[in-house]
Amino acid sequence: MSDFKQRALDYHSQPSPGKICINLTTPAETVEDLALAYSPGVAEPVREIAADPDNAYKYTAKGNTVAVISNGTAILGLGNLGPLASKPVMEGKALLFKRFANIDSFDIEVTHNTVDDFINTVANIADSFGGINLEDIKAPECFEIEQELKRRCNVPVFHDDQHGTAIVTAAGMLNALEIQGKQIHDCTIVCLGAGAAAIACMELLIKCGAQRERIYMLDRNGVIHTRRDDLNEYKQLFANNTDKRTLEDVIEGADVFVGVSGANLLSAEALKLMAPNPVVFACSNPDPEIKPELALKVRDDLIMATGRSDYPNQVNNVLCFPFIFRGALDVRATAINDEMKVAAVEAIRNLAKEPVPEEVLKASGVSSLTFGPQYIIPKPMDPRLLKNVARAVSIAAVESGVAKLDLPAV
Amino acid sequence: MSDFKQRALDYHSQPSPGKICINLTTPAETVEDLALAYSPGVAEPVREIAADPDNAYKYTAKGNTVAVISNGTAILGLGNLGPLASKPVMEGKALLFKRFANIDSFDIEVTHNTVDDFINTVANIADSFGGINLEDIKAPECFEIEQELKRRCNVPVFHDDQHGTAIVTAAGMLNALEIQGKQIHDCTIVCLGAGAAAIACMELLIKCGAQRERIYMLDRNGVIHTRRDDLNEYKQLFANNTDKRTLEDVIEGADVFVGVSGANLLSAEALKLMAPNPVVFACSNPDPEIKPELALKVRDDLIMATGRSDYPNQVNNVLCFPFIFRGALDVRATAINDEMKVAAVEAIRNLAKEPVPEEVLKASGVSSLTFGPQYIIPKPMDPRLLKNVARAVSIAAVESGVAKLDLPAV
Repeated sequence: MSDFKQRALDYHSQPSPGKICINLTTPAETVEDLALAYSPGVAEPVREIAADPDNAYKYTAKGNTVAVISNGTAILGLGNLGPLASKPVMEGKALLFKRFANIDSFDIEVTHNTVDDFINTVANIADSFGGINLEDIKAPECFEIEQELKRRCNVPVFHDDQHGTAIVTAAGMLNALEIQGKQIHDCTIVCLGAGAAAIACMELLIKCGAQRERIYMLDRNGVIHTRRDDLNEYKQLFANNTDKRTLEDVIEGADVFVGVSGANLLSAEALKLMAPNPVVFACSNPDPEIKPELALKVRDDLIMATGRSDYPNQVNNVLCFPFIFRGALDVRATAINDEMKVAAVEAIRNLAKEPVPEEVLKASGVSSLTFGPQYIIPKPMDPRLLKNVARAVSIAAVESGVAKLDLPAV
Repeated sequence: MSDFKQRALDYHSQPSPGKICINLTTPAETVEDLALAYSPGVAEPVREIAADPDNAYKYTAKGNTVAVISNGTAILGLGNLGPLASKPVMEGKALLFKRFANIDSFDIEVTHNTVDDFINTVANIADSFGGINLEDIKAPECFEIEQELKRRCNVPVFHDDQHGTAIVTAAGMLNALEIQGKQIHDCTIVCLGAGAAAIACMELLIKCGAQRERIYMLDRNGVIHTRRDDLNEYKQLFANNTDKRTLEDVIEGADVFVGVSGANLLSAEALKLMAPNPVVFACSNPDPEIKPELALKVRDDLIMATGRSDYPNQVNNVLCFPFIFRGALDVRATAINDEMKVAAVEAIRNLAKEPVPEEVLKASGVSSLTFGPQYIIPKPMDPRLLKNVARAVSIAAVESGVAKLDLPAV
């Protein structure tokens, strides 16, 4: 067994199995404490909530709780291994929620028969929480699941594999294009991969100005075009009226490549065909679509990002999900809408333009970070993300009319 | 607003809303920590669990986690106020699980249409947890719900309002009868109330030796007898072939009265009709079926228990549920069966016969406790409950063949 594998298993089994636990926020030592916490005192908040459901935010942990929910059908890059096997990932997500945004989060893995069964189960328990983070649910089912849960639930529902990835990708992409001197409106974009992350990334880039007809999306059968009859309704939205059929056909002259394909599929030859000053986001893990050392040897006019922490410009969802939920919970938003997502994009991209404090350099293990080709996205260890992104999201929630509370004082 | 009411509301809103939060059990400060906790390290426990589901107990918090689940249809003595209003009670239960048995517990409130919808929802999420504590679900639905969930789930399912109440009642009752010099086998028992707790109490007393035909159960229409046609299948099991129709009819000559009726319904005159050396458990809260000061004035040969902390002999579920789950989790029991319940009864009743340490007296606010009419049940603040009850339950699980682990070393 490799050293890293052993350390990862040890980390998950020590000092006790797993990564999260429950703690009390109130005293529970004396008979008097327990009379307040449970019978007879607990009857008082029960009555208050029965009289006005909003009092659940006043007298219970609901308002700071996010459930991380999965069915284990698309675990990391490992595939459909079932609900129970997804539990370490979901606990990990809960750990990140707490670590980065002080959100109390726990994981629920759902066993189910049909998609409707999954939706109904989650909808039935949703009111227990302040928000729901869906995770590692395979496409195309994830789209229907999220859409239907948003309709049925009173609390924000957010599928992080779609929107977290899309928000961080868009933030980095807009910065990369700015450095390359390009407008997203004018760019030809190639998206290799057509799953949850791919479709969400392209939809958000369109909201940020990209033109749908200049996007070429490819699945394992090649370019998604209007004459194909094997497309689900989500891919159909990206069917391009084109004669191009292969990655080589579409990459020629393209300004942007986004890889969420799961494999090393972009060759040096294909990269050479791109337009001057291209942007390549090779986001698959652990093997990016093209290795940065190879790509930058082939093209010195390139700006590149990956999903890996050992290269510059890591597209990492942790830059977004703790903070978009923090911002939503802070103003008790009933949804996470497009305005809030775009606000998160802007807040993340703007932070990369700020001078980086010494503590962030140290925590990130680098000697300097200056906005430019090697630094288009903030580092996960940047504590300014919490304030900046959450605040921007809260403001957008208030301005777009989905917040039930005013902005908290700064 | 009364002072107590205000203090109860303050307790639930300060220092933050609610009573429980999430904490991390592993370090999450450095880039290296996060690489172990989440991507890429988390893939290792995922693979281990996919290969063997039992590894979830090794690498996740599952094995020490109990979900407290309700639909809010029978909240305390307050009735059907809906799922959200039950949340303070369920969080309170989670607090007690942590406080008394170091079990990580959180609450889930289920909104549903049909009973099947509730069952299916809970069954679909059950594998996330090491056990399920059902709470505040009204009768008779609670019986079908528990039965079906026990069938569908691989983890222990325990409806505390039934079995927690029954176990503590049985422990106190057996001690009271011992002091009164009576054998339960010979006793005539009157049970006022025919809900979840009443039926579970009587079933467990039967397992402890009571004779079903010597039990008279009453609902709001009087004695449950074989000529009634308004009985659900659970009450039918207690239909007595008798001409007696009222509480006064059946209380005459009875040895035992158990009140779980929800109201002050036992008169001094009725009490006078009981056999010599009777036992009265007037468990309704906040108003017992008869007040102890009145009852003990009428009969000085009486042993009495209530559900209240301000009288001796409190029947309090917290004497049982944290420890029966602790015992079940410690040996990874797949169920909480009758053998485990009876073992809990014996462990609780035996503890009341032990000398009481000074710290317990102090925490309980009394100067002395000696096994006898005023002390038939241990005090909730007795730390010996954890060791004694959990151990007895673990042993019973192993011996009855539902444990997947050996007994832990003492």
